[in-house]
Amino acid sequence: MNAAPVAFTTGDFRARMERAVEDAVAEGLDGLLVTPGPDLLWLTGYSPTAITERLTMLVLSTDAEPRMLVPTLERPDLQHAVGAPALAVSDWRDGQDPYDVAAGLLRPGAQYAVSDSTWAMHLLGLQRRLAGTRYFAITERLPMLRAVKDANELARLEAAGAAADAAFEEIVQLPFAGRRETEVAADLARLLRDFGHEQVDFTIVASGPNGANPHHDSGERTLTEGDVVVMDFGGLMHGYGSDTTRTVSVGEPSAQMQEVHDIVRAAQQTAFEAVQPGIACQEIDRVARRVITEAGYGDDFIHRTGHGIGTTTHEPPYMVEGEERPTVPGMCFSIEPGIYLAGRFGVRIEDIVTVTENGGRRFNNTTRELVIVE
Amino acid sequence: MNAAPVAFTTGDFRARMERAVEDAVAEGLDGLLVTPGPDLLWLTGYSPTAITERLTMLVLSTDAEPRMLVPTLERPDLQHAVGAPALAVSDWRDGQDPYDVAAGLLRPGAQYAVSDSTWAMHLLGLQRRLAGTRYFAITERLPMLRAVKDANELARLEAAGAAADAAFEEIVQLPFAGRRETEVAADLARLLRDFGHEQVDFTIVASGPNGANPHHDSGERTLTEGDVVVMDFGGLMHGYGSDTTRTVSVGEPSAQMQEVHDIVRAAQQTAFEAVQPGIACQEIDRVARRVITEAGYGDDFIHRTGHGIGTTTHEPPYMVEGEERPTVPGMCFSIEPGIYLAGRFGVRIEDIVTVTENGGRRFNNTTRELVIVE
Repeated sequence: MNAAPVAFTTGDFRARMERAVEDAVAEGLDGLLVTPGPDLLWLTGYSPTAITERLTMLVLSTDAEPRMLVPTLERPDLQHAVGAPALAVSDWRDGQDPYDVAAGLLRPGAQYAVSDSTWAMHLLGLQRRLAGTRYFAITERLPMLRAVKDANELARLEAAGAAADAAFEEIVQLPFAGRRETEVAADLARLLRDFGHEQVDFTIVASGPNGANPHHDSGERTLTEGDVVVMDFGGLMHGYGSDTTRTVSVGEPSAQMQEVHDIVRAAQQTAFEAVQPGIACQEIDRVARRVITEAGYGDDFIHRTGHGIGTTTHEPPYMVEGEERPTVPGMCFSIEPGIYLAGRFGVRIEDIVTVTENGGRRFNNTTRELVIVE
Repeated sequence: MNAAPVAFTTGDFRARMERAVEDAVAEGLDGLLVTPGPDLLWLTGYSPTAITERLTMLVLSTDAEPRMLVPTLERPDLQHAVGAPALAVSDWRDGQDPYDVAAGLLRPGAQYAVSDSTWAMHLLGLQRRLAGTRYFAITERLPMLRAVKDANELARLEAAGAAADAAFEEIVQLPFAGRRETEVAADLARLLRDFGHEQVDFTIVASGPNGANPHHDSGERTLTEGDVVVMDFGGLMHGYGSDTTRTVSVGEPSAQMQEVHDIVRAAQQTAFEAVQPGIACQEIDRVARRVITEAGYGDDFIHRTGHGIGTTTHEPPYMVEGEERPTVPGMCFSIEPGIYLAGRFGVRIEDIVTVTENGGRRFNNTTRELVIVE
């Protein structure tokens, strides 16, 4: 699973930029402004060494070729990006006002989608220079820009999922009782890297009462017999994300732990079986929630059922009440219901799933039974 | 140098929040809105496991106690932050509109400073809900909020600098010729961790012609006899940054390499000696630039002379033309002039310096002579 994937080509990036402009026009916008982060990487292959206060911005519009504005000192780096041959380049030097330079690349009065994570400082700088220009977050107006993955992207997500699964298969062979959450988390991070991840983003190990906190940061608690342990881990491999959760029991679980685990597993399975082209995202949330609610734990499922995944681990589409857009073949997202009993324990089960013409296909395939560890 | 620093207390965070509001009022603002990142960590000690699309925001204002808005599922995490007892808490659930909830915490028509790296998506969400409210980047209106460090912060920055120095002392003992840039970079990262860094942010190893690119990302080039190699590396230790650059020669340098190195060293030394309370930041840039310009290399010094450092590696104050604010005792920033000869080589020398009543004091103290490595 460590085989290098097929490389993206300049043509791939050119096609993505063209499609982004088409999507923007279809939405009544004039273009996109994209600063470093997952959108820029997806559109151009470019990711500066660090995201800093210095403005880097891709301008995509109907009336000009794609153009990247970069700090002068990062211009050589940009040339290494695979998408660079498809870009015109402008630069600005330390001491210049980057927003003055950027304003010269924009059309007064135009409407642009901007990448979600563009710094407010940059947006405010542009708003100050070009009062009539309007801005909208990509997630607000073009949420599905990166949502449907092509075959190359699907292969990378599948490989990332398989690597995360391999990490899980190994971690459950190691001792749990007597070790701290942070130690198990460090092992998970090492295993993700061993199996090919270039970046580890999170290794949540939430034991006993800590499991009732969905975003618990692994701490100094020592695992002990009778604990239920939620492990939620992932990162990037070949630029695409993994994200899987399994809940294990240190020794024999109590009857209630087993019962709660069975309910979460049923909710996850039912939601997975509901996946098919055209179903509304919120419907997948509702299906999972119904199982948990009917079992009497509705108030303890305190988050949405899932999120899209690609060059980031959280992106549209979201499986959440109110998201009425339909799923489309090639979309990839998590299905991760959970039950959180404050002060006692939590259970969550999460797979990455892709939509095919024939329904859902999982990229995580380790057992969803309650595994007993030592 | 690995000794744990004195912990920040809830009182420290309360005092910082109070001062931030006072600074805002003095600037004609009504408060601050701070999302996850270095400002939030500095004000409250809170840093969520990951910065995601879910809105987390601290509201500081004159007319209410400090209040943190968090996603419901991250509320337990917040309680672990040392500053949490000084905060009121509001939350929002998946499926709710977080900007509606946030708008209820703001005052219509008020003017707020927002953290630089707040996501544009969040700012646009607030702007849409509260049309009369106005926003300004912290760097624009309150740039010196975190610039003056207290004794505890200075101790952490000094320790981070000493650890980076220790990494340099070891790396120059290792072989350079015949190894790739990425291998030396990996050694630097390992050494930074060995000497106490919890996070490595960058390990630039730029050899031969790559050295002419100030932000070169270490690559597959093999180092060879006769190369000049720029090494610029740093990260976080106890939450505070290191950032130092030294340029070494693999074997004997040419006469021009030695000459260029001497010029950069003189520029760096002259700028360091100019540091004293009250001098304008841009003056430190001018002093360094003058030395390099008079030596005939002015066009090859293509970036500002320095940047502030604290909980981030780049923050105000910037040592750049146009920054007329004065330096103040307790400020910490880099002094890092360089000369970049396209297609040939580059030289940069960088120390972190703090301002004292008696002038500058360096946190990096390895030799600034041109070290010859093997």
